[in-house]
Amino acid sequence: MSEKELLIKDLGEFSLIEHLVEVLGDAARGTGQGVIRGIGDDAAVLQVTSGQRLLVSCDMFIEGIHFNWHYCSPHQLGWKALVANLSDIAAMGGRPRWALVSLGLPPETPLKRVEGIYRGIAQLCKEFGVTIVGGDTTSSPRGTVLDITVLGESSRSKIAYRSGASEGDWLLVTGELGKAAAGLACLQEGIECDASVKDVIQAHLMPWPRVREAAVLMSSNLVGALNDISDGLVSEAAEIALASGLGVVLWEERIPVSSSAKKVAGRLDCDPLHWALYGGEDFELLLTIPGGKGAPMRIRRLVRSLKKTTGTSLTIIGRMVPPEKGVRLIKKDGSVVELKERGYDHFAVNNQN
Amino acid sequence: MSEKELLIKDLGEFSLIEHLVEVLGDAARGTGQGVIRGIGDDAAVLQVTSGQRLLVSCDMFIEGIHFNWHYCSPHQLGWKALVANLSDIAAMGGRPRWALVSLGLPPETPLKRVEGIYRGIAQLCKEFGVTIVGGDTTSSPRGTVLDITVLGESSRSKIAYRSGASEGDWLLVTGELGKAAAGLACLQEGIECDASVKDVIQAHLMPWPRVREAAVLMSSNLVGALNDISDGLVSEAAEIALASGLGVVLWEERIPVSSSAKKVAGRLDCDPLHWALYGGEDFELLLTIPGGKGAPMRIRRLVRSLKKTTGTSLTIIGRMVPPEKGVRLIKKDGSVVELKERGYDHFAVNNQN
Repeated sequence: MSEKELLIKDLGEFSLIEHLVEVLGDAARGTGQGVIRGIGDDAAVLQVTSGQRLLVSCDMFIEGIHFNWHYCSPHQLGWKALVANLSDIAAMGGRPRWALVSLGLPPETPLKRVEGIYRGIAQLCKEFGVTIVGGDTTSSPRGTVLDITVLGESSRSKIAYRSGASEGDWLLVTGELGKAAAGLACLQEGIECDASVKDVIQAHLMPWPRVREAAVLMSSNLVGALNDISDGLVSEAAEIALASGLGVVLWEERIPVSSSAKKVAGRLDCDPLHWALYGGEDFELLLTIPGGKGAPMRIRRLVRSLKKTTGTSLTIIGRMVPPEKGVRLIKKDGSVVELKERGYDHFAVNNQN
Repeated sequence: MSEKELLIKDLGEFSLIEHLVEVLGDAARGTGQGVIRGIGDDAAVLQVTSGQRLLVSCDMFIEGIHFNWHYCSPHQLGWKALVANLSDIAAMGGRPRWALVSLGLPPETPLKRVEGIYRGIAQLCKEFGVTIVGGDTTSSPRGTVLDITVLGESSRSKIAYRSGASEGDWLLVTGELGKAAAGLACLQEGIECDASVKDVIQAHLMPWPRVREAAVLMSSNLVGALNDISDGLVSEAAEIALASGLGVVLWEERIPVSSSAKKVAGRLDCDPLHWALYGGEDFELLLTIPGGKGAPMRIRRLVRSLKKTTGTSLTIIGRMVPPEKGVRLIKKDGSVVELKERGYDHFAVNNQN
């Protein structure tokens, strides 16, 4: 760090906020986007679309727990923290509209770092038509803390709860799994870059929220339950089962394990299936669709439609079963494994992430 | 701390969340309060009242910056963090309805501490009919971080912006000033308790948001600009002036300096007027009311009505003037002091709070 580099303590809180609003640019304006008053008063004033339900969620990212400046650029942090939030709105079948950014920063933080965080946020805002309407910027004695709250909308008839699954429903997942965990392993091991490694590191640092996919899926009127995979496939599948009063069976041979993750796993002597089952932050969507007559055809049609409109794959990976069956994986050899129900625990002692 | 005391790392994230929902009790239920789905899915689902605008704000509290476990109990932290948020909604003339709580906790945190924070939040929720509809609970490597987002509503015609002041408007303030800063000084000096000290310490640790007062003031249809005093009177008055393209004059003799703060100031050899002008976190409301014919009578009527319905005083302390006059204090001896425009800077080097 050069001696002349501008630190946020040199700028002060009020100038910093003004500067960050400039960095956000259009992402802070949102004229005509339901924003009556954005950043700059005691609270934002918003106009929720008539007849729509409001969706709200928040996610906190703490330095040393959720990210690490050795691996992650400021731009990537801003991007990923907002992705986690947009993904929560997608997981309800909704459309993200507005967000608030709370940021705790050590006074010695270089201004460039804060600008980077906001550029990452602004880039993703532009991609999904989200406006930053408020937040809080404050001092932190040790380490950066970023908490984003996102607000979205959904029509009353099109909200997808975790509890929406029925017995006999098919369980499907978008995209490929295991990439984010593979990327984290590469960063931790510091292994050199080839195309597969780059692919999984990108997936870990700059994941993509399945907002457009959620819109296509919801417009089919086929979705029962819906979740995003933030804490790992098994954990999210178990949540759907638990909330719906059911059990769930997953078929190992059907799980779309990322080919890049498989290649990386070979180099690191890791199990890519374990990443796909338990690795968090893939931010894919997990959903159920009713079984019964005509289901295979309806699902094939939906798979084609999703691929055509978004480029994203959709794969049947399991089925909802009676609750007494719990959460099970049928291995390729036909053997049955009872899966641990719960995924990432932020307070567990041996967490690596 | 006894060896047997339960720590949150013993409980784990999922059991902790279930337990905290129990601690919140009615504050997390909110049936019939516009809550379609509260805590427990990817996002909360809310029903904004038809024809109302949505208000959203957030405030982050970081250990060692905004609070200190030596001075502040967990209950007081939960209470005060929510007060800061409710006060922001009051400062727009709105009614707080829902909140989300993001909490970063060291794994060694005693469960009792977290329960205390949530009990403080729940108590205030009950007082103002606010429902906790979501949040995030995560690990923090060093120190506690609490970020609350509050959502409120206001009818379209009754939103009070900082920019709503006009030249010639009277500037008024609710309650008494300087108490919170006096309380902080007492806590920092560790001085013994008498009634005045207790009063100001209570004001610092468990302030009261002027939500009911805001409703009475707004129903008068007299309010021009409105702000809450979180960063100090001068800072907030300057914000109203700046946002409205005006200057502002304050009269020293009119400023309602708290009598408890005056007594404490005597003991500590401090200036109570300085606390009243620059001390933050009094959470009183600062507002403008149009001047002109009939104004004195209208204001007297409003003062009586506010006192009668809420017990809170309302005092004329200044007037909005042309912008070239800046921000000025007329001292008791008639001399004029140009006031520094800006209040608490979270990144300044010598902050005491």
